[in-house]
Order: sequence, then C-alpha cells, then structure tokens
Amino acid sequence: MKAIETTIVSPLPEVEVTVRAALKDQGFGVLTEIDVAATFKEKLEVDRAPLKILGACNPVFAHRALEIDPSVSLLLPCNVVLETVEAGTHVAIADPRELMSGEEFADLADEAARRLIAVIDAIEDR
Amino acid sequence: MKAIETTIVSPLPEVEVTVRAALKDQGFGVLTEIDVAATFKEKLEVDRAPLKILGACNPVFAHRALEIDPSVSLLLPCNVVLETVEAGTHVAIADPRELMSGEEFADLADEAARRLIAVIDAIEDR
Repeated sequence: MKAIETTIVSPLPEVEVTVRAALKDQGFGVLTEIDVAATFKEKLEVDRAPLKILGACNPVFAHRALEIDPSVSLLLPCNVVLETVEAGTHVAIADPRELMSGEEFADLADEAARRLIAVIDAIEDR
Repeated sequence: MKAIETTIVSPLPEVEVTVRAALKDQGFGVLTEIDVAATFKEKLEVDRAPLKILGACNPVFAHRALEIDPSVSLLLPCNVVLETVEAGTHVAIADPRELMSGEEFADLADEAARRLIAVIDAIEDR
C-alpha cells in the first residue's frame, strides 16, 4: 500500500513527539496507539525492531467521509506508522487518496493528503 | 469497502460484549477502541447514532502478514464496527481478503477471513 513517508535521523520516541505535534497542527488527534513490538513480545515471544501504530483522526474530515459513505468506518482512523530502521525512524502515513479511492471522495482525500504531507514536511524541517 | 457483516436485534453495549468474546475465541484481541459518536459530540458538537470502532488483532496473523510485507502496518488492526441502527446493532468487520488483496497474502487472508466469519456466526447464534 502507498504511504506518505519519510525517514528521520532520530530515535523513535523523539520522532513520535514531533509527529504528534505536527498532526495536532494539522487538526489530527491521535485516538489510538499500538505498540506492535511490545504486543508481539508479550503474545508471541518474538523480538523485533520497535514499531508503533498511531491512529490519527481529523474529526471534520472523518465526519464528512462518513456522510459520503458510512463504510469508511472500516478504514478509520488513519494509521501513522513509526518504525526503528538503521538510519533512524521511518514514518509512514496511510495515504487517504488510496484508502478512499472513489471519485466521490476525491476532494476530501486530496485535502486530507495535503495536510498529511504537511505533517511529513514539518517533521523533516525540525 | 466490502465487510463481513450482520445485524443483531440487541442494543450496542450487549452486542459489544458478545463480539469481544467471539473475537477472543478466534484468537483476536481488541487493541484499540474509538467511540466515534462521543468524539464527534465532543469535537464537533454533532449528534449521531452510536458508532464504535474496535481494533482487533490476531498476533499470529499480524506477524505473518508483516513478514510478507511490512507495509501491512498501514492497515492494522482489523476494524470491527458497531453501529446502532433501527433494527438493533449493525456489526461490520473489514474483510482481510480486501485489505490484503495481493496474491502473496491469499492463504493468510482466507484463513483470517474464515475466523472472522466464525465471529459473525457465533454472535448470530447467541
């Protein structure tokens, strides 16, 4: 799946702070958080690189999307994935233009994508 | 988006209890929970029918999927959507065969879908 993404030369916990702040600046709250690495360690006794999934949601966009098609709830919130990689921390945001690919969502998905690209730009500029 | 779904003639809180138990029986934990209606009320002062999104994850399946393609993290966990409708509570589960549509995921997506269909069967039988 296509993502809006970048790699930042800083450890995950630091990057998470800047990502959360940049999301907030663009109107996205973080509604959920999954520590995938910790879950795998606990449930499967598998060690892996740190991996976190933040569930981001802009209530205005979410409300508009659900008015267009209630089945959008199957794809909310928008995942922001942070993973420790050799060069630092990889940040990948699910692209709303791919999640909501129907013509009826075009304007909304473009607008949401623009804001999420602004999130990536903001964390790259820090 | 296609879902594995049903409508149960009971109120949402009751259905949520049986859904959570059925998910557990099939090896899915609920890692996240979003009360969409409460969020819209708080952030937008919009009233709407009760709508909750549970984020379900079977760690064995999730681990296998991430081994096949790390970008699956953009689509985890699997949404289980509960919504109050006139007839009771609509339950819709994102279909893993649609979320992971590549040929490389075929076996895994089929197996996960079978279990989620079993979840729907179990709540219908209660």
